[in-house]
Amino acid sequence: MLKDFKWQPQGQASFGGALLGLYQRLDQCFVRLAQGCQAREFKFPSHLPAVTLEKLDYFNSFPHLITMPVTLERSEENLENFRGNRALHDGAISLTRIAPIRHVLTPAACYHFYQFFDGSSLEGPLYLTTAATCNRCEDYYEPLQRQWNFNMREIVCIGAADTVKSFLAEHEEKVSALAKKYGIAITWQDATDPFFKPAQNPKHLAQRLDPVKKEMIFGDGLAIGSVNFHRNYFGEAFHITANGEAAYSGCVAFGLERWMHAVIKTFGEYPKDWPDFA
Amino acid sequence: MLKDFKWQPQGQASFGGALLGLYQRLDQCFVRLAQGCQAREFKFPSHLPAVTLEKLDYFNSFPHLITMPVTLERSEENLENFRGNRALHDGAISLTRIAPIRHVLTPAACYHFYQFFDGSSLEGPLYLTTAATCNRCEDYYEPLQRQWNFNMREIVCIGAADTVKSFLAEHEEKVSALAKKYGIAITWQDATDPFFKPAQNPKHLAQRLDPVKKEMIFGDGLAIGSVNFHRNYFGEAFHITANGEAAYSGCVAFGLERWMHAVIKTFGEYPKDWPDFA
Repeated sequence: MLKDFKWQPQGQASFGGALLGLYQRLDQCFVRLAQGCQAREFKFPSHLPAVTLEKLDYFNSFPHLITMPVTLERSEENLENFRGNRALHDGAISLTRIAPIRHVLTPAACYHFYQFFDGSSLEGPLYLTTAATCNRCEDYYEPLQRQWNFNMREIVCIGAADTVKSFLAEHEEKVSALAKKYGIAITWQDATDPFFKPAQNPKHLAQRLDPVKKEMIFGDGLAIGSVNFHRNYFGEAFHITANGEAAYSGCVAFGLERWMHAVIKTFGEYPKDWPDFA
Repeated sequence: MLKDFKWQPQGQASFGGALLGLYQRLDQCFVRLAQGCQAREFKFPSHLPAVTLEKLDYFNSFPHLITMPVTLERSEENLENFRGNRALHDGAISLTRIAPIRHVLTPAACYHFYQFFDGSSLEGPLYLTTAATCNRCEDYYEPLQRQWNFNMREIVCIGAADTVKSFLAEHEEKVSALAKKYGIAITWQDATDPFFKPAQNPKHLAQRLDPVKKEMIFGDGLAIGSVNFHRNYFGEAFHITANGEAAYSGCVAFGLERWMHAVIKTFGEYPKDWPDFA
């Protein structure tokens, strides 16, 4: 029974005290990794425009994951009807007319960067980092391990193919060293993105044939992060060029709550037994 | 023209570099204020259960402000229909069947605390702090000043009436001193919450007759924060007791992007001219 922790069955965690301290120290640890390549940090909004995700074929590939921020159509009549409806039935909101839905709650932190640098001609590689609250709808949820909303720290490189490949190889080693230093057992496994109906999606087949995603698998089988090579997919979709060609990109992603889980599973629930991650 | 800043017309800001540094230093400044009363920090999920807001009559008072996280009903047939629909028409998503909506995106950071301490009998006052991304739907948006999603740092006290009143009086003075120290011109004004059809809402009338909200108004008329006395409203709604009676509560709230605006408006757009907030 964790102290200062509360779980809502719909996939959401609240925490304070030593758990928040752990969360913050883990994130700082990954920020220091990002500082190793002079990554520039950004803060992004909660939502991504639907048109941005459409460029990535997201609605076709991951319809089961999306959460959309929906507001009521703002006419006085409609808002009055909403109130008159009495808002809740069995804990669920009864909608009246809604405004057009033009956004999706951020499903992965790094998408914001490709949008931010949309149309850029890069003179040298970009090294970037951000942490974002991500939302992914799932069939079931488990505290710290599988949450509707959770936090992801990413370190991203956008540039020429070789630069991105070196960045990813170097960070795979650095993450292995970091995990070893703090006693978190991880192994690396080739993986694919969680496509809807994967067998029918040519992208899934392409990822199977030529893996571009490696997951950091914690002892009990949970992916607590990943290293991803996007080739020039985002460069093409967002017209970002390096040396006159579509830029390549790659990212290293850390699931912050999943790292908390790995620490607690490895060292127990007493904060005095946890590594300091200093 | 701010550097490392991008604005999406739908009320959302992205920033890095010196602006992110300013954001972080401002927040740290308010965290130090919170440490002055040994406030315990918490991190909360993005969403609040609708049943929690229903207890506060939120859907009746603020239907115009809410943003709901909506997901698709997860049957294979429904997800296939969504894909077949082609997701976007004029940049807007075409829905198929949606799952019951049981949440609202956090509209104010402190609500999470009343839910977290639901049913508690307090032995002494609680001093708490959290920062949260809040969502409020508005008629129009302006960078840093009025955003669909923005960040709010709050310091909260829950306890006996006198304790809460002293907390609020003390923090009003501390905030005035802090603003003066850094050269941000603020005045205090009685205010009311932004009710839908205020003239018809008895809560609005009650707030007019006996003000419970004081806003920190920055020079050009923008509220960059507020001090709020909730009486025992949350204590009653969430069965939190102090000395056997419904607990009183109050909070001091800071709009982080609005404080950034106040700094830029006061000192200009060059970071070298900004206070260090150390």
